[in-house]
Amino acid sequence: MSQEARQTDETYEEFLDHVQTYNYVGDAAGVLGWDQQVTMPEEGTPARSKQSSALSTLRHDLLTDDDLAAWLDELDDLDGERGAVVREVGRAHERASAVPEDLVKRISEASSNALPVWEGAKADADFSQFEETLEELVQLRREYAEAIDPDRDPYEVLFENFEPYIDIETAEEILTELREELPDLIDAVAESDVEPADPFEGEYDPDRQEDLVREALDTLGYDWDRGRLDTAAHPFSTGTQFDARVTTRFSPEDPMGAVGSTIHEFGHASYTLGLPDEHYGTPLGDSRDMTVHESQSRLWENHVGRSLPFWRLFTSAVEDHLGVDTSPRALYEHSNEVYDDNLIRVEADELTYHMHIIVRFEIERDLIRGDLDVSEVPGVWNDKYEEYLGVRPENDAEGCLQDIHWSHGNFGYFPTYSLGSVLASQLFAAAERELGDLDDDIESGEFDRLYGWLNENVHEHGCRYTTPDLIREATGEEFTADYFLDYATEKYGDLYDL
Amino acid sequence: MSQEARQTDETYEEFLDHVQTYNYVGDAAGVLGWDQQVTMPEEGTPARSKQSSALSTLRHDLLTDDDLAAWLDELDDLDGERGAVVREVGRAHERASAVPEDLVKRISEASSNALPVWEGAKADADFSQFEETLEELVQLRREYAEAIDPDRDPYEVLFENFEPYIDIETAEEILTELREELPDLIDAVAESDVEPADPFEGEYDPDRQEDLVREALDTLGYDWDRGRLDTAAHPFSTGTQFDARVTTRFSPEDPMGAVGSTIHEFGHASYTLGLPDEHYGTPLGDSRDMTVHESQSRLWENHVGRSLPFWRLFTSAVEDHLGVDTSPRALYEHSNEVYDDNLIRVEADELTYHMHIIVRFEIERDLIRGDLDVSEVPGVWNDKYEEYLGVRPENDAEGCLQDIHWSHGNFGYFPTYSLGSVLASQLFAAAERELGDLDDDIESGEFDRLYGWLNENVHEHGCRYTTPDLIREATGEEFTADYFLDYATEKYGDLYDL
Repeated sequence: MSQEARQTDETYEEFLDHVQTYNYVGDAAGVLGWDQQVTMPEEGTPARSKQSSALSTLRHDLLTDDDLAAWLDELDDLDGERGAVVREVGRAHERASAVPEDLVKRISEASSNALPVWEGAKADADFSQFEETLEELVQLRREYAEAIDPDRDPYEVLFENFEPYIDIETAEEILTELREELPDLIDAVAESDVEPADPFEGEYDPDRQEDLVREALDTLGYDWDRGRLDTAAHPFSTGTQFDARVTTRFSPEDPMGAVGSTIHEFGHASYTLGLPDEHYGTPLGDSRDMTVHESQSRLWENHVGRSLPFWRLFTSAVEDHLGVDTSPRALYEHSNEVYDDNLIRVEADELTYHMHIIVRFEIERDLIRGDLDVSEVPGVWNDKYEEYLGVRPENDAEGCLQDIHWSHGNFGYFPTYSLGSVLASQLFAAAERELGDLDDDIESGEFDRLYGWLNENVHEHGCRYTTPDLIREATGEEFTADYFLDYATEKYGDLYDL
Repeated sequence: MSQEARQTDETYEEFLDHVQTYNYVGDAAGVLGWDQQVTMPEEGTPARSKQSSALSTLRHDLLTDDDLAAWLDELDDLDGERGAVVREVGRAHERASAVPEDLVKRISEASSNALPVWEGAKADADFSQFEETLEELVQLRREYAEAIDPDRDPYEVLFENFEPYIDIETAEEILTELREELPDLIDAVAESDVEPADPFEGEYDPDRQEDLVREALDTLGYDWDRGRLDTAAHPFSTGTQFDARVTTRFSPEDPMGAVGSTIHEFGHASYTLGLPDEHYGTPLGDSRDMTVHESQSRLWENHVGRSLPFWRLFTSAVEDHLGVDTSPRALYEHSNEVYDDNLIRVEADELTYHMHIIVRFEIERDLIRGDLDVSEVPGVWNDKYEEYLGVRPENDAEGCLQDIHWSHGNFGYFPTYSLGSVLASQLFAAAERELGDLDDDIESGEFDRLYGWLNENVHEHGCRYTTPDLIREATGEEFTADYFLDYATEKYGDLYDL
């Protein structure tokens, strides 16, 4: 080994050690976040905020550190796995270094203060209480985007916080295709005479529901030695390849809601658990961004959990735990019912879901670009719901105040939900091209082949590839909405006799 | 305000901000520790170890930071509350700075490696498997003590890690007094004809036991909005004044074990919860060291939870939850029974407990001072048990391998258990001097006066006073074993008709 190569190896080791510390602290913060949402006593917040904020400051210091900058310079021409690590860390370092500390602090404080204001406004269904706060958050995020790159579209810059590698044009193309193609299908469903079955009535004990979703996790092969299930107000999953936890919640009237949400979070966790142990703490052992993560949750939730073969497998569990008499077809219909008067994103089916996302995307894009005034948000929101979904919110709580994202100061996040669903279809199709039809696997509870394919083509790469490269490597194609549209047309055609 | 005073204020603010970050990270590490023992899935350990170790390294860096050293120098002559903060931080800074990083790392690694070796040796009841490991831990801790102060007794230096302000001579005097005074009382109990009642037989459902200990916590006024109860293999409590949690465990055959252990942890938590909110993150909002902490757990466990008035209050709860027919006197006798053939520290009564501690203290002191060879530990242990307690372990598992402390590399910890019990008696006597007899309060479930006294005289000072000053302020006297010996003589005289 040359003197120079040996020097590079040494520098890379120092660099990697620093990166690992940064990531370990991030995962520690993740444990604090899980605890806060799942187990923390209610008056623990003041201390927890300070603990989380201290970890966040230390992480920022580690990421903007001068040593790190020097190592990144020195390691600039590495390729392969080491090059990927340098690329990912370099990108995060540049973003963090570009934003003045004072602005980071103002955004963090504004977001903390915004949460109770948004909660109050939502409780009173009164956007005017939140208007000034939202205005401040929009302005701060515009400043943030400008600090990172004053010459680019600020919305694009923010979008890259959640999806750094799919360019905004591609994202907009896909959303536009959904906006153009889906309404006809949604209209056809609305006009269909088919009345989907609903085998449920009355209320179902949360303890019985919990037994049921635990059996769903068992059935899908969730690794309990590296995971756990708890309840949380807003279901989420979090963790590492050694410990990836899921949460759910139970609504007495809607037992299938918990099943769907649990399988969704299982999908996220299955990605996390599939990351390579040996790269823990580095980008090679970390998941790709929101689009890919959401593709995994959506794949399991929709392509497996809302399929007829799955209900052939799992109907008896529903009958046993909930004491209902039903059939696979009935549960398949029920879990895919399109509610054409639904105003709430998180209760949407696979079709209308994207229209909910497109409303949010268009509004946040225009806010950040300065093309829309904050005061106009409720009116524009309601108009778009009427235009895209044929329903008009009666108040701001079921309208533009329903989601938490903007109060967190997160603009540019929403599109990744749709992109993730679309990618799920593309990946599932690629898996079936290689493995053959997966219906029999699903119906017999054999998930090893599907899981193996996802693991080999998605999970085990960590952040080795950029998102477009990962999609290309896994599917042999560019990112496209075609597979989702085919899937949706076929599935809802069957369900609604179109 | 003078220029100089303003400058001092500014420096103090910067200094305090740094100290708070250090403490917030410590509390974050505490959350990770709780999670690891209570909720973490079993295969989460590799990732958790790295997260905890990263936080520990960052804490060490914050504590040995050059800025901190400069601030400490500059703030050297502050008095009052600010002086106390500088004293506490300065002490921690000096210790951390004196020990080479490499040694810190070696101790940490040796302790991690020691745990499974100790567990294996204990499972096989074979000290020889652990001997080499213990030898290494002893040597490392001797090096550590030498790094801090090569001119002082190394055991004294280590003891100060757990009890920095009570000097080792005082500690030894108190332990010696216990060793000289207690055996007569223990012998008298052993010779007594009294057979303490035992109202329990068979096994008791852990769920019913949990209901019972929850009612015990309700009865004592545990603040559930700032706490929670879980089970753990080794019961402990942890947290901050905003979130102080307790754990317990249930043995089917010994339902009173869980009650006692829960009240013990409640005592720790009540101290933590009594620390002032406004000083969170600074030494003024942090608890004094092990002796004072243990005094609070022992006071509630022994002086309240093992008293006749408490059983007058709580017997009906035991009858209701466990379905037994008993009496306050029977539960009082049962919860204080002296088992003169007991070999296990954590199962010991209030009298023999101290003899268990003294064995450990004498052995670890001699090991660290170089007066005892590691290979001699099992023999010396067994001889001392025979001498002090009249029983001889049949194997090392029930002998010198029973406690985890040495495998953690903790030498100098054990004495604080006895010192804490002794201090509990002194504080309880002082409270009764001021408030009058507390029997009626306890019997009627009125704990406000006792809690108020402890809060005012102990909790709310945080680390404002050194331990001896705190004792003097609270009781008007120096630290003494007299109150414990009087209490023990009276209590066991009554119980065993002496």
